[in-house]
Amino acid sequence: MTSGTRAKMVAGAADLMSRRGVNATSVREVVRHTGTPRGSISHHFPGGKRQLIEDAIVFAGAQVSGPLRHLTSERGAMAGLRAFITLWKRTLEQTNYQAGCPILAVAVEEYVNDPSDQETAGAQAVQHHLLDLAQGIFEDWQQILSNALKQEGLTASRARRLATLIVASVEGTVAMCRAARSAQPLDEVSHELELLLKSAIDKP
Amino acid sequence: MTSGTRAKMVAGAADLMSRRGVNATSVREVVRHTGTPRGSISHHFPGGKRQLIEDAIVFAGAQVSGPLRHLTSERGAMAGLRAFITLWKRTLEQTNYQAGCPILAVAVEEYVNDPSDQETAGAQAVQHHLLDLAQGIFEDWQQILSNALKQEGLTASRARRLATLIVASVEGTVAMCRAARSAQPLDEVSHELELLLKSAIDKP
Repeated sequence: MTSGTRAKMVAGAADLMSRRGVNATSVREVVRHTGTPRGSISHHFPGGKRQLIEDAIVFAGAQVSGPLRHLTSERGAMAGLRAFITLWKRTLEQTNYQAGCPILAVAVEEYVNDPSDQETAGAQAVQHHLLDLAQGIFEDWQQILSNALKQEGLTASRARRLATLIVASVEGTVAMCRAARSAQPLDEVSHELELLLKSAIDKP
Repeated sequence: MTSGTRAKMVAGAADLMSRRGVNATSVREVVRHTGTPRGSISHHFPGGKRQLIEDAIVFAGAQVSGPLRHLTSERGAMAGLRAFITLWKRTLEQTNYQAGCPILAVAVEEYVNDPSDQETAGAQAVQHHLLDLAQGIFEDWQQILSNALKQEGLTASRARRLATLIVASVEGTVAMCRAARSAQPLDEVSHELELLLKSAIDKP
């Protein structure tokens, strides 16, 4: 069992979480979904499902913040906004609107202990830790967008507010697209966010 | 077992869904949470958990659309926006950021069949039906806001886009507040949405 197996399981867990949510993602299905050997969970994730979920959150966050950070620093805030939207649109369309955002799932659900979990912490401590991780990812995305907006001349507080609006509205829209099985809500929100950013950058 | 019992269970299910998500909400906990007799589920919801969840979606949608429709028709789009935000802020603050939006949970998760469910439809049909209901609620809220914005002189397409942005960003923010255990994201988004609405209404 190589580290490639581990990476495959983390990516597979993030994908399943984005389609089903955290509680409907079972360790058994991650193993099946990724075609990895049965013993992989206890070998690579001695902490059990909870550890796999934690790694999947960090992985899913980086999948977005990597390209987002690169594009905003190379081409500015508007390019960052478009990249952020395009990433989600591609995920939705390529999965026939089945996959959404795994971080949003963590932020919406309450984690139910799994038989595979090591009993090292109470249920509330586990839940708070998962929420902290999700919050850290949202914060990361907000920071990247907010820094790019400050580079365009916006005040720190305006840049922060717009970055929060972008992350919140795109996350909400991803769920709405999943419910509608259509990209229309994302197209509508993207149109408004572009107008708003353009006017904020033109008259900072 | 009166119809008061039924209503109590539906409200209790909506509350639990908003705290835990759909799959972590068990029929047994709804019974405990609402202090209703054990036989209440099969008596009032012969279709099982799935029927209870469906009713809870409709109930939760109306809890928002009722006051939203009333306020927008009496006092316009800006009052509607403020009411929409205040409703969510109150829910978050009164539950110490544990409750979010049950409709968002439906739009994010995939329903796992429950032993109490009547076996009348396949898993995919059930999931599509729940997504249809969630989509119908989002659509309802969008329509109310969009109609109010048209009353203020906005074109139908602009009103529609702004209504989608409001619903999407507030829904996303509710999840972000839950993750952060703070109202700060909602305050930031609310500030930007008010500015945006004001400028759209002033120059339609």
